[in-house]
Amino acid sequence: MPEVRHAMIAWLARVGNSSNYLHQEGREAAEALEAARRHIAALIGASPEEIYFASSGTESNVWAIRGLLALRRSVGKHLVISAIEHLSILNTARQLEREGYRVTLVPVDQAGRVSLDDVVAALRPETALVCVMWANHEVGTIQPIAEIAAAVRERGVRFHTDAIAAVGSVEVSVSSAPVDALSLAANQFGGPAGAAALYVREGLHLPPLFHGGIQEQGRRAGTENLLGIIGMGAAASVAREQLATWAAHRRGLRDQLESSVRSQIPDVHVFGQATERLPGHCCFAFDGVDGESLALGLDREGIAIVQSSACSSRALKASHVLRAMQIPDALAQHACLVTVGWYNTAEEITLAAQAIERVVQQLRMTATLIARGG
Amino acid sequence: MPEVRHAMIAWLARVGNSSNYLHQEGREAAEALEAARRHIAALIGASPEEIYFASSGTESNVWAIRGLLALRRSVGKHLVISAIEHLSILNTARQLEREGYRVTLVPVDQAGRVSLDDVVAALRPETALVCVMWANHEVGTIQPIAEIAAAVRERGVRFHTDAIAAVGSVEVSVSSAPVDALSLAANQFGGPAGAAALYVREGLHLPPLFHGGIQEQGRRAGTENLLGIIGMGAAASVAREQLATWAAHRRGLRDQLESSVRSQIPDVHVFGQATERLPGHCCFAFDGVDGESLALGLDREGIAIVQSSACSSRALKASHVLRAMQIPDALAQHACLVTVGWYNTAEEITLAAQAIERVVQQLRMTATLIARGG
Repeated sequence: MPEVRHAMIAWLARVGNSSNYLHQEGREAAEALEAARRHIAALIGASPEEIYFASSGTESNVWAIRGLLALRRSVGKHLVISAIEHLSILNTARQLEREGYRVTLVPVDQAGRVSLDDVVAALRPETALVCVMWANHEVGTIQPIAEIAAAVRERGVRFHTDAIAAVGSVEVSVSSAPVDALSLAANQFGGPAGAAALYVREGLHLPPLFHGGIQEQGRRAGTENLLGIIGMGAAASVAREQLATWAAHRRGLRDQLESSVRSQIPDVHVFGQATERLPGHCCFAFDGVDGESLALGLDREGIAIVQSSACSSRALKASHVLRAMQIPDALAQHACLVTVGWYNTAEEITLAAQAIERVVQQLRMTATLIARGG
Repeated sequence: MPEVRHAMIAWLARVGNSSNYLHQEGREAAEALEAARRHIAALIGASPEEIYFASSGTESNVWAIRGLLALRRSVGKHLVISAIEHLSILNTARQLEREGYRVTLVPVDQAGRVSLDDVVAALRPETALVCVMWANHEVGTIQPIAEIAAAVRERGVRFHTDAIAAVGSVEVSVSSAPVDALSLAANQFGGPAGAAALYVREGLHLPPLFHGGIQEQGRRAGTENLLGIIGMGAAASVAREQLATWAAHRRGLRDQLESSVRSQIPDVHVFGQATERLPGHCCFAFDGVDGESLALGLDREGIAIVQSSACSSRALKASHVLRAMQIPDALAQHACLVTVGWYNTAEEITLAAQAIERVVQQLRMTATLIARGG
């Protein structure tokens, strides 16, 4: 995003260390940090004092879970998460099980949607925390977070939402959804990788994830990634202004892509279509067409395509998200995620659809030849 | 550093997500990441496979301690650290005490030097890990790490060194010092804040600090701060070439500063002068002159000066480092750290010395007037 690049390049011409408030350069750095915090707070309807910086969405998620659980240790050691959470939450939950916690996975339906009733049914007297993501990073399904958060709060249980895939794509506001903590990451809304934030509702004092200096009100030690944070602030400012425009644009292009592909290859499987999805997400599979070969083929055709999320694209087994949606393994292993950006054009989408059609036909032809022993 | 800025600005013109190796941009990002890893490895005499990225020196330190302790759980729950470690190590040790570990603090002498005999004397059959920093961040004292590491290894105990203040200022090599893990941070050698690394000796498989995706061979989850890492790689490459030149330059200027100040204000206290120090570090105090007022006065005079480390400069009580050196509290509270950079000139040092002299005289005069009730 040009605004992000400009802000970061302008800062690169300077030096400064924001934890060091005594000298002039440090003062400017501290001001830049606080300006970014205000932009991020504004994007999600929070106060700047409720925003803490972190180095990645993973760190934000782990910090939220461990911090909220630590605050509720007297309540109990039971954690409820949805079955389609990001690996940073799923693997932290598995680690917590090794540490003596009990974890309940809430299932999703075939569209990837978590039901409020299932969440409520999973609660026990000793439940300390519920985590349900705002929107899924692979399929794009959007969850009814406002309802779930309200129901969980009513029962006196803490609630965290991983809004990393959602922030910047759809409206996310902590004023309409009573969550206790919310994670976001800059690279999901046009900012740089390595800059992320955790919203923590005012009055909740999370212990730090690791111990060190006194940055972030003593709750997150380590010198801040100032440049990344400046980029995140610039991205948040643009995202807040452009959100509705971007969403409409992306939704239009995504729908164009899906209908174009479907018109040429009617047996395409599109996942999550039956429910509200992120506007730019298109997760699909073709019978008998390996998802990785498809992505590689599209790469050769010059179409940047991502398979699964940035955090798990090296994992080649079927995604836990699609499994939870009861997509058969044989099909789930072939799934590909295409995300359409606000910077994409209708022409590019036409080219992308043609490339997908071409590559799928080639791969199917090759598979047929191999099957014939040719 | 211009080389760092250029490398980062060049990258900012692109996009890419290094955990996503399938498409072209991702491939370039992964290559940039590996090039940075090679530069960092070369700077400390390690193999690229032994370098893991982290988001701050604090994270590197905490990860090293928790990871090495986890590997040695069967040995015992005793940790030995020097009394002058960075807060990220000291506060992690305090947290570990709450979790059932025993911690022994090894004292330092009045020059801030750790003795090998004291480290060896602190070892017990259940000692799992020893941490002694390569050089101190406040006073600059350099520790005999090669000897200490060899002695600790000989006794079958793991050894970590926080080399954050040292890397880029003096030669640091894991081939001459048999350490098991070593932390470094880019912003200490001309790179950006928010990029750091942990060296872990080949064959040691540290568990991750937090759980998530599979970045960094599964040992450090979270999307990497690619831009920061590119800057760190560029800084490492320059630092490796320039190290000896820089060190000689900084040492010359630092000695000029100290002798100039001493010639005007003979009662200046310079800490750590009796032993080998980092070439750019000058930690001093003047009787009756408040360190913070001094730093603020110098700021007004346009001389950037840092008081204590970037990670603790907001803490105004006497530093634990100076206390461990048995500097009386009344004096330690007045301590100021000036670091001389490779980019400084003799003219700037002359101006800095004059500014220090002027501000100290003003502050002493004000103190005298106040004491007289004037």
